[in-house]
Amino acid sequence: MGLRKLETCFSPALYEADLHSGSIVVIIDILRASSAICTAFANGAESIIPVSEVDEAREYKNRGYLVAAERDGYVLDFADFGNSPFNFTREKVAGKTIAYSTTNGTGIINMASSASAIVIGSFLNISAISEWIIAQQKDVVLFCAGWKNRFNIEDTICAGAIAEKLMNSLLFSTICDSTLAAIDLWTIAENDLQGYIEKAAQRSRLRDKGLDDCISFCLTMDYTRKIPVIKNGILVDNIL
Amino acid sequence: MGLRKLETCFSPALYEADLHSGSIVVIIDILRASSAICTAFANGAESIIPVSEVDEAREYKNRGYLVAAERDGYVLDFADFGNSPFNFTREKVAGKTIAYSTTNGTGIINMASSASAIVIGSFLNISAISEWIIAQQKDVVLFCAGWKNRFNIEDTICAGAIAEKLMNSLLFSTICDSTLAAIDLWTIAENDLQGYIEKAAQRSRLRDKGLDDCISFCLTMDYTRKIPVIKNGILVDNIL
Repeated sequence: MGLRKLETCFSPALYEADLHSGSIVVIIDILRASSAICTAFANGAESIIPVSEVDEAREYKNRGYLVAAERDGYVLDFADFGNSPFNFTREKVAGKTIAYSTTNGTGIINMASSASAIVIGSFLNISAISEWIIAQQKDVVLFCAGWKNRFNIEDTICAGAIAEKLMNSLLFSTICDSTLAAIDLWTIAENDLQGYIEKAAQRSRLRDKGLDDCISFCLTMDYTRKIPVIKNGILVDNIL
Repeated sequence: MGLRKLETCFSPALYEADLHSGSIVVIIDILRASSAICTAFANGAESIIPVSEVDEAREYKNRGYLVAAERDGYVLDFADFGNSPFNFTREKVAGKTIAYSTTNGTGIINMASSASAIVIGSFLNISAISEWIIAQQKDVVLFCAGWKNRFNIEDTICAGAIAEKLMNSLLFSTICDSTLAAIDLWTIAENDLQGYIEKAAQRSRLRDKGLDDCISFCLTMDYTRKIPVIKNGILVDNIL
């Protein structure tokens, strides 16, 4: 095949499912869902069940599952923990299946259901996921979760960092302005990632809620080689 | 009042009308509608009637109006001309009312109808419009038209250029990631605007259709002091 197409979507409100059936969709929600999921697999989680509704998450809890559930950054009262990556320790998650409900992550997974593969990307697994994508023979969409359907900086620069790696392979082409802008923003951000993220709105929101302790961790490159992938509606380690 | 809010919207699909009622909305569609409208007023046009439907534009033609109408960059057969700024010469438009139908401009004007004011921004009137905005006591939304609901680079960098001027006045604050990203992209682009626009997808689309002759003109700063504004559904020179 010729060069593969690389596109970037800045928000669920901009996702065009019809155009992306057959592509690999990389879901990027680095503060904090996609970082938490990568951490869970790094620490030996068996699988993660994405859950949309609060009642469904409660039902999983009643059936004995470990439940991670939050809304707008706050842990739900019946849940074992929220979605800080620091909660997904080896002691808690190794060998476990976790029911995981987030503000918008599960909705996004459903939107991307016509994709050829849905994988979870973050800075934590950036080299592993980029190399894996390069090894496939598929077009790619970098799908930024954003925040309440809005563009956000942190997911965009992570998309830009992945896009740069893919473009450097010389196997991809893009005429997508979002991809070009993401790469340029990444180029500005990369020399002082933490400083750059300081200005992101989500950074302020997490700080206001006292949930910002995990941000430098979420900006760590290559903490893990794990590639979380959706199989039959459930997140598993791609190697399985 | 305290600092005024500055926000940027990258696409009609991201516009949140409820949040922006009472704000000044600046519509930015530099290739080519907002540049053409600024040019028309610079050349003495009396007013411009935004028209949504092709049939409505044809009706205006039958009633003797000058009609500018295109779809996807192509001039409609009954129209006097399309929306290249070069069509809106003084000889053709001075003292005239023009019915103007574009691919998506009129839809955007309707979306912004709850705003306190709707004005048309481009590089051609960038200083005039920025100074005018600064003189008002209103929050501001920079509304990029995008292309078929997608993010585009050219409108984003124009928004970034306006945003930079507004932030430099020290009268605005922003926690909007889109605004911050737009300013950063403008900072990259400003030293070689034409070169930067070369990579935008719309640039390629216009080139493919032979419609790219006006691009350097559309990147000209401060060609005019005119500020097109919607009054009673019609675009007029703000001074009137």
